[in-house]
Amino acid sequence: MDRRRFVTAAGTAAAATGLIAAPAIAQSMPALQWRLTSSFPKTLATIFGSAELFVKYVSDATDGQFKIQPFGANEIVPGLKAADAVSNGSVEMCQTASYYYIGKDPTYALGTTVPFGFNARQINAWFYHGGGIDMMNEFYATQGLYGLPSGNTGVQMGGWFRKEIKSPADFQGLKIRIAGFAGRVLEKLGAVPQLLPGDAIYEALEKGTIDAAEWVGPHDDEKLGFNKVAQYYYYPAWWEGGPALYFFINSEKWASLPKSYQAIISAAAAAANIDMLAHYDALNPPALKRLVAAGTQLRPFSHEVLDACQAASNQLLAEISAANATFKKIYDAQMAFRNDQYLWWQVAEYGYDNYMIRSRTKG
Amino acid sequence: MDRRRFVTAAGTAAAATGLIAAPAIAQSMPALQWRLTSSFPKTLATIFGSAELFVKYVSDATDGQFKIQPFGANEIVPGLKAADAVSNGSVEMCQTASYYYIGKDPTYALGTTVPFGFNARQINAWFYHGGGIDMMNEFYATQGLYGLPSGNTGVQMGGWFRKEIKSPADFQGLKIRIAGFAGRVLEKLGAVPQLLPGDAIYEALEKGTIDAAEWVGPHDDEKLGFNKVAQYYYYPAWWEGGPALYFFINSEKWASLPKSYQAIISAAAAAANIDMLAHYDALNPPALKRLVAAGTQLRPFSHEVLDACQAASNQLLAEISAANATFKKIYDAQMAFRNDQYLWWQVAEYGYDNYMIRSRTKG
Repeated sequence: MDRRRFVTAAGTAAAATGLIAAPAIAQSMPALQWRLTSSFPKTLATIFGSAELFVKYVSDATDGQFKIQPFGANEIVPGLKAADAVSNGSVEMCQTASYYYIGKDPTYALGTTVPFGFNARQINAWFYHGGGIDMMNEFYATQGLYGLPSGNTGVQMGGWFRKEIKSPADFQGLKIRIAGFAGRVLEKLGAVPQLLPGDAIYEALEKGTIDAAEWVGPHDDEKLGFNKVAQYYYYPAWWEGGPALYFFINSEKWASLPKSYQAIISAAAAAANIDMLAHYDALNPPALKRLVAAGTQLRPFSHEVLDACQAASNQLLAEISAANATFKKIYDAQMAFRNDQYLWWQVAEYGYDNYMIRSRTKG
Repeated sequence: MDRRRFVTAAGTAAAATGLIAAPAIAQSMPALQWRLTSSFPKTLATIFGSAELFVKYVSDATDGQFKIQPFGANEIVPGLKAADAVSNGSVEMCQTASYYYIGKDPTYALGTTVPFGFNARQINAWFYHGGGIDMMNEFYATQGLYGLPSGNTGVQMGGWFRKEIKSPADFQGLKIRIAGFAGRVLEKLGAVPQLLPGDAIYEALEKGTIDAAEWVGPHDDEKLGFNKVAQYYYYPAWWEGGPALYFFINSEKWASLPKSYQAIISAAAAAANIDMLAHYDALNPPALKRLVAAGTQLRPFSHEVLDACQAASNQLLAEISAANATFKKIYDAQMAFRNDQYLWWQVAEYGYDNYMIRSRTKG
């Protein structure tokens, strides 16, 4: 069939039947005005910026029929209550980290990361082609949520320390700003985890109320000025190898959308997902250079330290698995997938990066 | 303002002004029927599958108004002529690897990869937040094309060899199926690169017409059965650290699209991009396990071999830069960006993967 004739014929038919076709189109493109509440402030250009990209795609794709207004943390909902507001339907959708809600159910952690979990590419492989999105949505459905992965920071930095961590014993009594499972792991090693919002960390570190603090990575950390009050910058954050962000949509609101809007949201969420990681990857290198030039001392966690943390982490995750069948089912699936990922990763990916890093250092 | 009232009011207004609103909606959602010709066969589920995902998103997002029919290589256009068919407007768009067209202009290579270039995440950082998409489109516009990155294979494997490569001297006289810049690099080391389509490689390797062949990675290579006719499987493909796939759209066709369709295509292309890499990452590990279980011998290229290849590659790329100002401009931008990427990569990303790989091996 000749394509041009087909298009012309279809166009003519549409024009001739305009009055009949109009209601069908109107029905499939309803005017909607949604709100998106983020767990992150607008100043986090990487994370909040990807929410802005998402709502722009949705608006542009629908000729402005489907408008989603993004709000920063605490503008309409407290940052750590974003998913609650979506569950109860007071806001249509949110941008958040699933693991903020482990207090409700530890299974939430598996939508972001667990210690010693996937790296960023691997969790996307699990989400998109390892059954991960569906597996998580089986759980999220019980919470009144429909979820789509919407971003990743890449491996985070291990944070800022006022003294060096030379062995696992150095965690003893260490007051460290760290959240979630990672805090509970460090507690097993004698540390005293503290929960502080981002904007309170600097002062606590400066005054010595805490000895260490983890946040995100070079770009975000530099903005908060932690390098001015702590000298040692550790890596990697073994608790955040590839933490995923999520868009949660109220289950009923999601079900009420026409199929076209669901497709637009799904594609735009995947676009936001790849975009956020690209943004972090582009911004972190220059920030790291500035930090090191200004005197920051980079320190890797030793394998002895990492081994102790992993042992404590495995213990914690086994305890949670024993108490929660849903967590166990998804966690076991993730670990099997992760082990296969690293079997493959050690060959071509790691081999390539290894050579490129050495070759760059040689100049 | 109460959101529900807003939505209701808007809905009522739309119903009341239906006759007036209809032409505007019809104009912004024209019925279009496009064709997408791929450089890859339909049997490549990873690559062709992402084109299928893309056209499904576009169709679903427009309620079937914008239909793009995907064709495999050679169905309507020869695989390596896909971009030509789009340039001259005989097909609206294609899925291809930009570096297939270096015969027309070496600048095309930079849309896929050059030897010792970016890894998959890094090229996305460059595309989405390093000015890469725009920089490439300045060039593609001169070719009658508008391009969007649409996928990545991750680091490829170095291919199948009937004898071991223990030093750069072993490339002397080696007949190897390899394309593009990589073939020209190996030529500098005395190899004899051969251009063979995928379906001719097996027989050539079996008969000894060639001594070695590179294709993609475990999943795709296993399907073609190369392990049955060559024992040594080398890694990494230093010429394909993170090769990107592209959608090319005829420039005039792109400009003629309503803004809503452009937004849908852009989001769906980014979704295809993240999806293809996730698909490869999910399929490669089990394929690698099967290959090794069936007797394949994995071999890393030694650093001595890689150093020789990189020196030859730098020489080739300098020659091309000297002869082509557009190539030089974009290549220099990529190398500056890549060097910063690996400065950062050696810290948290590499540190994390390094530990996870060692820890997995220890069990």
